[in-house]
Amino acid sequence: MADIGALLNPGSVAIIGASPDEAKLRGLLLQVMLMHPYAGDIYPVSRSHAEVMGLKAYRSIGEVPAPVDLAVMVIPSRFVATELERCGEAGVKAVLIVTSGFAEQSGDDGKAMQATLRDIANRYGMAVLGPNSEGFTNTARSLAVTFSPAMHAPERPLLPQWHQEGRVAVVAQSGAVGYSFFDRGRLKELPFGYVITTGNEACLEIFDLVDYLLDEGKTDVFILFLEDIKNPATFKCVAEKALHAGKLLIAAKLGKSDAAKRATASHTGALAGDYAIYAAMLDHYGIVQGADTEQMVDIASGFLTNAHRLPKGRRVGICTGSGGAGAWMADACTAEGLDVPELDARTREEIDRILPPYGTSQNPVDGTAQAIREIGYAELAWLVSKSDTVDGVVMVTSARKKNGYDSERDNVFRVARECEKPIVCWSYTWPHQTSSELFAEAGFALHTNMRNCARTMAALVNYSGFRDRFLERRASENAATAEPHRNRAGVGESLRKAGRIVCEYEAKRILAAYGIGAPGNDLAMSADQAVAAADRLDGKVALKIQSSDIPHKTESGGVALNLETAEEVRGAYRGMMESVRARFPDAQIKGVLVEAMAPPGIEVILGVGHDPKFGPMLMVGLGGIHVEVLGDVAFAPVPLTHGAAHDLLDKLKGANILGGVRGAPVSDIGALVEVMVSLSRFAADQAEAIAEIDLNPILVHAQGKGVSIVDALIVKQSLNITSKEAPHAG
Amino acid sequence: MADIGALLNPGSVAIIGASPDEAKLRGLLLQVMLMHPYAGDIYPVSRSHAEVMGLKAYRSIGEVPAPVDLAVMVIPSRFVATELERCGEAGVKAVLIVTSGFAEQSGDDGKAMQATLRDIANRYGMAVLGPNSEGFTNTARSLAVTFSPAMHAPERPLLPQWHQEGRVAVVAQSGAVGYSFFDRGRLKELPFGYVITTGNEACLEIFDLVDYLLDEGKTDVFILFLEDIKNPATFKCVAEKALHAGKLLIAAKLGKSDAAKRATASHTGALAGDYAIYAAMLDHYGIVQGADTEQMVDIASGFLTNAHRLPKGRRVGICTGSGGAGAWMADACTAEGLDVPELDARTREEIDRILPPYGTSQNPVDGTAQAIREIGYAELAWLVSKSDTVDGVVMVTSARKKNGYDSERDNVFRVARECEKPIVCWSYTWPHQTSSELFAEAGFALHTNMRNCARTMAALVNYSGFRDRFLERRASENAATAEPHRNRAGVGESLRKAGRIVCEYEAKRILAAYGIGAPGNDLAMSADQAVAAADRLDGKVALKIQSSDIPHKTESGGVALNLETAEEVRGAYRGMMESVRARFPDAQIKGVLVEAMAPPGIEVILGVGHDPKFGPMLMVGLGGIHVEVLGDVAFAPVPLTHGAAHDLLDKLKGANILGGVRGAPVSDIGALVEVMVSLSRFAADQAEAIAEIDLNPILVHAQGKGVSIVDALIVKQSLNITSKEAPHAG
Repeated sequence: MADIGALLNPGSVAIIGASPDEAKLRGLLLQVMLMHPYAGDIYPVSRSHAEVMGLKAYRSIGEVPAPVDLAVMVIPSRFVATELERCGEAGVKAVLIVTSGFAEQSGDDGKAMQATLRDIANRYGMAVLGPNSEGFTNTARSLAVTFSPAMHAPERPLLPQWHQEGRVAVVAQSGAVGYSFFDRGRLKELPFGYVITTGNEACLEIFDLVDYLLDEGKTDVFILFLEDIKNPATFKCVAEKALHAGKLLIAAKLGKSDAAKRATASHTGALAGDYAIYAAMLDHYGIVQGADTEQMVDIASGFLTNAHRLPKGRRVGICTGSGGAGAWMADACTAEGLDVPELDARTREEIDRILPPYGTSQNPVDGTAQAIREIGYAELAWLVSKSDTVDGVVMVTSARKKNGYDSERDNVFRVARECEKPIVCWSYTWPHQTSSELFAEAGFALHTNMRNCARTMAALVNYSGFRDRFLERRASENAATAEPHRNRAGVGESLRKAGRIVCEYEAKRILAAYGIGAPGNDLAMSADQAVAAADRLDGKVALKIQSSDIPHKTESGGVALNLETAEEVRGAYRGMMESVRARFPDAQIKGVLVEAMAPPGIEVILGVGHDPKFGPMLMVGLGGIHVEVLGDVAFAPVPLTHGAAHDLLDKLKGANILGGVRGAPVSDIGALVEVMVSLSRFAADQAEAIAEIDLNPILVHAQGKGVSIVDALIVKQSLNITSKEAPHAG
Repeated sequence: MADIGALLNPGSVAIIGASPDEAKLRGLLLQVMLMHPYAGDIYPVSRSHAEVMGLKAYRSIGEVPAPVDLAVMVIPSRFVATELERCGEAGVKAVLIVTSGFAEQSGDDGKAMQATLRDIANRYGMAVLGPNSEGFTNTARSLAVTFSPAMHAPERPLLPQWHQEGRVAVVAQSGAVGYSFFDRGRLKELPFGYVITTGNEACLEIFDLVDYLLDEGKTDVFILFLEDIKNPATFKCVAEKALHAGKLLIAAKLGKSDAAKRATASHTGALAGDYAIYAAMLDHYGIVQGADTEQMVDIASGFLTNAHRLPKGRRVGICTGSGGAGAWMADACTAEGLDVPELDARTREEIDRILPPYGTSQNPVDGTAQAIREIGYAELAWLVSKSDTVDGVVMVTSARKKNGYDSERDNVFRVARECEKPIVCWSYTWPHQTSSELFAEAGFALHTNMRNCARTMAALVNYSGFRDRFLERRASENAATAEPHRNRAGVGESLRKAGRIVCEYEAKRILAAYGIGAPGNDLAMSADQAVAAADRLDGKVALKIQSSDIPHKTESGGVALNLETAEEVRGAYRGMMESVRARFPDAQIKGVLVEAMAPPGIEVILGVGHDPKFGPMLMVGLGGIHVEVLGDVAFAPVPLTHGAAHDLLDKLKGANILGGVRGAPVSDIGALVEVMVSLSRFAADQAEAIAEIDLNPILVHAQGKGVSIVDALIVKQSLNITSKEAPHAG
């Protein structure tokens, strides 16, 4: 097993290709390393220098006289494989490859070279980071194996002085972006433990490193920058591990736009994939999706300071010294889905005692400059936090003055320490360094951006609720998976026998065996049989042609609806046959399905697509042309628990249509969720066999009346379909 | 006429209530004034001091021996009216009232006191700012009449050294927020001319001040912070003036949330009103809606540096030294509605010559650290700007190193000066002061936030296009308003005669006189008449009861649809009468409207509501329950030009439904726009009479087939309805 510990916490480091020339990356890298008081041994390896920057150099890695934990390569790409082999022979445990010019270059050579590196690494069991990596930093060890400008001549210590440990880790595919989190976060007194940039990820990828850091147990928040996810299985397992451990993952995923997809392919050779699917995967594991550097750093800071007192609900109290800024914050909080309720009478009374007549205790609590001068921001936040009507506090302050909080210093520390509800702070002016430091030392997140501050509180609320539900669900899921499904074995057999396009009557039988809907009737093979079948049904009927060769039966004249009399049924059957045979003379027609017209209901689309990366994904959307145009659909990996299915429905913008609007009855959401759960189970069990499932539409009837699956289609995987895109992906 | 010049550019200033005690606001204010080298005379007025902070003091404003342009009041609220009267008597031209405790306090006293101040100001023709204002700053005059901490002991000059003039003005109702724009913008080298905080706006309000500054002609960008808009007529006129002059207004409007509405009422006594209507008004005049302080400052900075080369389209080229950061920016630009197309072959060839094999010229153009070192960021941006496939350039850079651009300094200046397309820059690392200054001096906007940078370019694109269309429209509108509308005079008369609820058959007649739809048929007063009317129509018919006493006719059994035979019509007529008479025995029934069933089409809702602030507002939305749930509607003031009506439709999230989706025909958008324009003209002409119009639904048929107005209702203003909320407001 690759020893990631040797990579990130090496006792000794060899620099292969070390140079005294600081204008070159390989000179720069050693120079940066030497700027920091790393206590381990450093061995330059150079064919042309006997000494580099005051250190004795060796002609090859094999000549280094002591064991080497980590070797770093900054050499032309054509030499990398040979040197990696030598490292293996020399017993090096881990290798960082900084060299560029692999899969990020056009052509296949780079990919082949990476495959070679992977082979060598596996053969020797070496932990290999890169190639095309900007290196990493371990602040606890004062080890910066990187040429990143963020590590040049640090004006400040790597860790803010009042932090014993760095509890934030950055793991990023892009070196520049990875170190920019550090660069921005350090200004905000954020304690980083690690900054790791993974480059092309020929061997180790982001979630391998997160996994190691989770096991190590020193990191509470992870800031991730993803171009792709190489190994979905690792991702899922690590994401769950983080949730269990109560650690927060904040991730930005590149590739929302085509331009970004083009760029990532040429940047680290990554295939950015379908953004909607990635977003659904991150969502499914409660991973916060970051929108920009500052926002991600801010959320990390808010989590670090409030992890022990996460909010129990979404009601916030806002306290402020400026009425305008407080009201603006109320708008920002509301936009993030938080509630800003009026405070209870008892709390208001207590606050009113200290307010001048032009202040207000309603919420936002406008303390006014006068009351703030008397009792201070911290005390005001404390009073607000005591209200039963709020789950957290947003402090709106002005931190621009030097020593502006000196008079309330003790209180700031006390409230940060003792408050049982989360507090986030926004300074509408640019904070003075003394104020930033005071807040950081006390343990407050001091945000400079209003929306990021509100977003941080919302992220805490969402994470907290999500994690609780997730842990509950896991328990129930473990029970549920033990439950036998009706006739599961038979299903695999039926599916195997069916053609690639499994049309409605077959699909309905297969799904019914999983408890999804009813099996369809027998097929009518003649007009007489159709009339007889219609006679057995109540009310109006529909006829639907069944043929694997006619997938779009409505558009092909293969569907007739609302038939009432025997004559209508007979006429429709004949007309349908004539029309279909004229248009598809070669189609093999299996018969005609005769079904009762479904009663009205809310139209829902359920589908399963096979994502090349993440496998089967369940899709749900509200039917009808409007929502199709609006792209209001939600995805999740399978199988789903009942709770997760409810959550997925809640993600639809038009979700409340199912709740009954304008006097319409409340829909049978329970029945819909039942279908979603069973369908997801089916898709998971038959993942290898199925490319696509469409239940379109499902009509959801009023509470207690269930659902009608109006149409169903299954498309099986063909042998060469494994790289097919998910059919519903945005 | 109030002399705003005397307020903002006074030759002399008296401080009424001046005090040597810097712990008090009135002491602090004078202290802050004296920190800046204002060249005019300053006269403290004090009853208890003969001298204040080294200046001779006077016992009353009347005793000041020279003419006073501006008097500032920092005295208890109960003395303000008396002192204001004295100022008037003494010939003072302008007064700033800093004192709090007026309309922002609960109770009616404050409002009455403000009315008194307004009377006095009007009587003497004084320009009065406040009360509850945090004062203002005029950087050209080094005049800071405020106690804002942002003006304490400035670490930097009020204007960045390489700016001759401050071309940005802040005008804000909130003092703290107003000065926070200055505080944040100064860090970004933004040249402010004025910061003005208006407080409760008893007399002068934000747009009076903007009007003055537009006439003065020194300001290019306005940052506005609105709690409400007191005078809609001033607003409209000033917003148009700014557009004509090519000046940019960036406004944040409080009151999206109920909590913020509560807060503004108690902060400056403002009624925040309906946010959706305010947003529509800002939109209608091309005013950029700001989301937070940094974003607004950033957009201001981008406009200042690119006003002479606004983008002609939404295609941007991105150049970067970091592949990851460039790709992330591509996502950010796309999210803001910008396009990031591949560059043309000729430009790519030129760029490829200087790139290493792992760089890319596609767009984003990843110059890689190596090529950047060779040619520099500015040259790369210059090369990209030359491509015909882009309308502007986004430079992604790292500005953290001291003197990091020294080697390309001349080029940075040359490109900033000579490039004919707009350039905005984002540093993914925190910029070093030397870099910020270099960019500012060269004339580049250097953004620290990625999304704000993309948003800035999008704002430039939108403003540029909007202004062009607006100027065109104005020309055509001036022609259009001269055009006579059919029978306009008669319409006023018909409307006057109708009851308050103008039901469908009357409404349709009135609207038809404006060219909107067809007048309905005569009413049937018996089953026989209904049958006869149906006979004269093609196809199936609808019967609809007509009574002002039954507004919801569908829900009351007053509508029968899809009637085919004479028997059906007769039966429906009788059933309808019976049912309606049973439920509304006292309703005065005017008869039954018999109409042909409309052919199918896309359902649209058109309405007019009467906003208490802005008067008649046209609303358009897509019909159907889904969109109703999603709240997908758009508003605009009336009358509308054809172009503005098209723009309004484009604001609907589901707008492309009208463009024909899934093989549906393209809808007759031209016919819909015609109805929108005529309805808006009607609503404008009859603004005094009409409270509400509903055309719900209108069916929009395929191209060339026009629209059907299925139902129409007009509700007239009652005498006490003038403060009614707009009925459709979100």
